[in-house]
Amino acid sequence: MTFRATVLTLYPEMFPGPLGLSLAGRALAAGGWSLETVQIRDFANDRHRSVDDTPAGGGAGLVMRADVLARAIDHAAPGGDTRPRLLMSPRGTPLRQKHVRDLAAAPGLLIVCGRFEGIDQRVIDRRGLEEMSIGDFVLSGGEPAALALLDAVVRLLPGVMGNVESGRDESFENGLLEHPHYTRPQMFEGEAIPDVLVSGDHARVAAWRRSEAERLTAQRRPDLLSAHRAGSAGKNSRSKA
Amino acid sequence: MTFRATVLTLYPEMFPGPLGLSLAGRALAAGGWSLETVQIRDFANDRHRSVDDTPAGGGAGLVMRADVLARAIDHAAPGGDTRPRLLMSPRGTPLRQKHVRDLAAAPGLLIVCGRFEGIDQRVIDRRGLEEMSIGDFVLSGGEPAALALLDAVVRLLPGVMGNVESGRDESFENGLLEHPHYTRPQMFEGEAIPDVLVSGDHARVAAWRRSEAERLTAQRRPDLLSAHRAGSAGKNSRSKA
Repeated sequence: MTFRATVLTLYPEMFPGPLGLSLAGRALAAGGWSLETVQIRDFANDRHRSVDDTPAGGGAGLVMRADVLARAIDHAAPGGDTRPRLLMSPRGTPLRQKHVRDLAAAPGLLIVCGRFEGIDQRVIDRRGLEEMSIGDFVLSGGEPAALALLDAVVRLLPGVMGNVESGRDESFENGLLEHPHYTRPQMFEGEAIPDVLVSGDHARVAAWRRSEAERLTAQRRPDLLSAHRAGSAGKNSRSKA
Repeated sequence: MTFRATVLTLYPEMFPGPLGLSLAGRALAAGGWSLETVQIRDFANDRHRSVDDTPAGGGAGLVMRADVLARAIDHAAPGGDTRPRLLMSPRGTPLRQKHVRDLAAAPGLLIVCGRFEGIDQRVIDRRGLEEMSIGDFVLSGGEPAALALLDAVVRLLPGVMGNVESGRDESFENGLLEHPHYTRPQMFEGEAIPDVLVSGDHARVAAWRRSEAERLTAQRRPDLLSAHRAGSAGKNSRSKA
């Protein structure tokens, strides 16, 4: 069954965008996944095709109407559609690789891209939208976040990546940042590739990479390192039980 | 002086992509910022135009060569170019709104988008690339991350947003998630807009929004709430000094 992505947006022309090229684009062209966009504005029912209105209680900006968006969602995902429904939003759950894996195992995704100040809370609640954030920064709308999320998900679909690359996630998921990489030329501006990497001693190479990954993680992301150590401890105690 | 973005990539056709539309696109067309892409492959000097090679020490995947990327960077940012140089990478500093503000105050940005397993460490060190991550998930390359980062930065450039919308960041930067939003219609599927928001009592509306923002933040992002409280305490002690 093909993974089916549906994006609800005021800017359908932003899709597939970068997803039409490279790995994701080749898989899209080959039918490895599908991407449909729904123009939310098509579900407005006044002659100005309004999708937004002023916030109840006052304040700056405009809020997307519950009724218009609900009609767009009901059209895109009629009863029986079991795909997860995401709303890209800085208020949402911070996206992690484990969510990406779960989403890639789903039959597809429905993604709502907000614009304006926000979206009426009632349609979020009543249509079961799960708010998801790609990070603690503010975008002009949900579209760049949806493109990033779909890129991360699509590369994990069966047949999209060669097996060659798939090792990367494992190293990310084990909770450490990646060790430094080197390749030819052997000498670059007077700096050689570290001796250990050209020693041919696989055990030493593996030990060096592990130690560099731990050093980088401790230096840059102590938060990940403590989670990683807690995770390893948990695994050990389970294997002993 | 116009904010000048230069993106080094193997997929220049991914740009401007979503940045060619909406707020960012209008500002781009009006000369409020500029976007140039540099094809890294143009700086390969063998007849196969190779930009990558096998990792020193062995292992899966391919590593981008230091020499080829260095030539591309030196072409794009000759001596005297003071723009920050970013490398989009899951190993990097997690992007936050405060970084976005700093980057928007710079004369522009040079952004390197990696592909393959990684980039030779020597060019990262010797060309002073600052590794920046949009989140703890793995993309097929740096391009979707660069698009998201540029979207966040460009919306803060002078004249890109109306003043109307600019209040949003302040609320994000004060460390709380946003309160729920409501707009017309007054009744949606039997659920009314909360009474307080239609009371006309501005003080009660403000108190409700504050309390909802705190409730949501405590529930979804306790990490932000502790940082927020520490920040408030810090401000108070400074103002007493």
